[in-house]
Amino acid sequence: MKPIARQAVWREGASHPDDLAEETPVAFEYNGISHAVMLATPADLEDFAVGFSLSEGIVARRQDIFDIGMVEADAGITLQLEIASEDFVRLKEHRRSLAGRTGCGLCGAESLGQVMRDMAPLPRGAPFPLDALYAGMRRLPALQVLQQATGATHAACRVHRDGMISYVREDVGRHNALDKTLGALARGGVAVGDSALVITSRASFEMVQKAAALGVGTLAAVSAPTARAVRLAESLNVTLIGFLRQETCVIYSGSKTMLEQSA
Amino acid sequence: MKPIARQAVWREGASHPDDLAEETPVAFEYNGISHAVMLATPADLEDFAVGFSLSEGIVARRQDIFDIGMVEADAGITLQLEIASEDFVRLKEHRRSLAGRTGCGLCGAESLGQVMRDMAPLPRGAPFPLDALYAGMRRLPALQVLQQATGATHAACRVHRDGMISYVREDVGRHNALDKTLGALARGGVAVGDSALVITSRASFEMVQKAAALGVGTLAAVSAPTARAVRLAESLNVTLIGFLRQETCVIYSGSKTMLEQSA
Repeated sequence: MKPIARQAVWREGASHPDDLAEETPVAFEYNGISHAVMLATPADLEDFAVGFSLSEGIVARRQDIFDIGMVEADAGITLQLEIASEDFVRLKEHRRSLAGRTGCGLCGAESLGQVMRDMAPLPRGAPFPLDALYAGMRRLPALQVLQQATGATHAACRVHRDGMISYVREDVGRHNALDKTLGALARGGVAVGDSALVITSRASFEMVQKAAALGVGTLAAVSAPTARAVRLAESLNVTLIGFLRQETCVIYSGSKTMLEQSA
Repeated sequence: MKPIARQAVWREGASHPDDLAEETPVAFEYNGISHAVMLATPADLEDFAVGFSLSEGIVARRQDIFDIGMVEADAGITLQLEIASEDFVRLKEHRRSLAGRTGCGLCGAESLGQVMRDMAPLPRGAPFPLDALYAGMRRLPALQVLQQATGATHAACRVHRDGMISYVREDVGRHNALDKTLGALARGGVAVGDSALVITSRASFEMVQKAAALGVGTLAAVSAPTARAVRLAESLNVTLIGFLRQETCVIYSGSKTMLEQSA
């Protein structure tokens, strides 16, 4: 085994025809206590740290993360977060020994009683225009730099009401990509309620949960949702869209009349 | 929230144009101790139980799983495994509080030191014919019953040297699909060393690790591998193939001359 590659893209020798996406163990420590290890693309890790902490409900507000340190070793990267003591106390009490790999959302429940989080439904927001989502999908591929190089990464981004997109983040894990975009939005002080988020993957129920935890009212996935994701989205007032392409989509939760269509 | 759906496919009302793949919390208990919860497609759960236990190295042999019970509740399904006491002692010692969601492979490492398993390289096996992989890819779509209905599930299967395929298993999680196929092979007493395994997803390093744990010398993925997956495959003598289609593929580890090409 070669040592951990630090770059998000790892260029292979002549025997391999393309770039490969790096996959690095990233450990989370809160106030000095090991919490989780995920395999992630080693880019935008501060976004990842903030987004994961918020979307998992470990902290409720960006400002309750006091510091983010980063320690690199052969075995991977450790993110050392200092969070408010009341959040840390709650984390220890509700400890779920979180852990995961790429593709994991929130992880670590040991028994069935720990799986579902108790969350309040979002207030019903203004409908989000489908045409803006389609326009976003036409813009997104050009900004998926890692995906173009490797074919192995998912992306998440914010779509604005005028069809522009921002905060594109990529990762080998779809939950990580979503966390990175959520974290980048939070670090930028962006109120996400007014935006839609797009993910280039399928939509699992944890992704609905993560988005709703940050008040995102519209989540659109390029591929299919699961049944559980649809049921959760219905119960949380999240508009969940699947099979989002440049001109079509399927609305899985939220009435169709909620979405303005100018076309 | 409606109660847990028991079926692998959950048919929606008229407002949804297609079937949805179910995603059910499945908890693993070993000898009465909670171990992990994963979201999985609730089908072929005995295969999943055996495959996960073997591919994670919790037991080394199929016969060290003495019994598999299944308890269903509103919150999900608990798989209650009875394993050999020496395996259970080792599990408790090397406890990694495994946990995951769909898409997770082995999970639960809390700190970086717990991520990599120490595994011996496989003996170099007979080369596997590429033409058989291509033939397998032509046969696989017709057998992906859940994927046809939902568009949301991955599949894994065994490919024989004559291009026939068997042990097709599907799941919303790609690691789960692989575990189900590995488990079905083990339950059937099939020596996997002579086969190739195909997965319809990307290839992460845990998937290489899982396959190698059961002696699979050739793993072929429909999408891209990660750099870490390629490095691990090289170190374990696993032939790792990516972008497998009906007539083409990319060989990422294992010399090209290892693979016979009759075309």
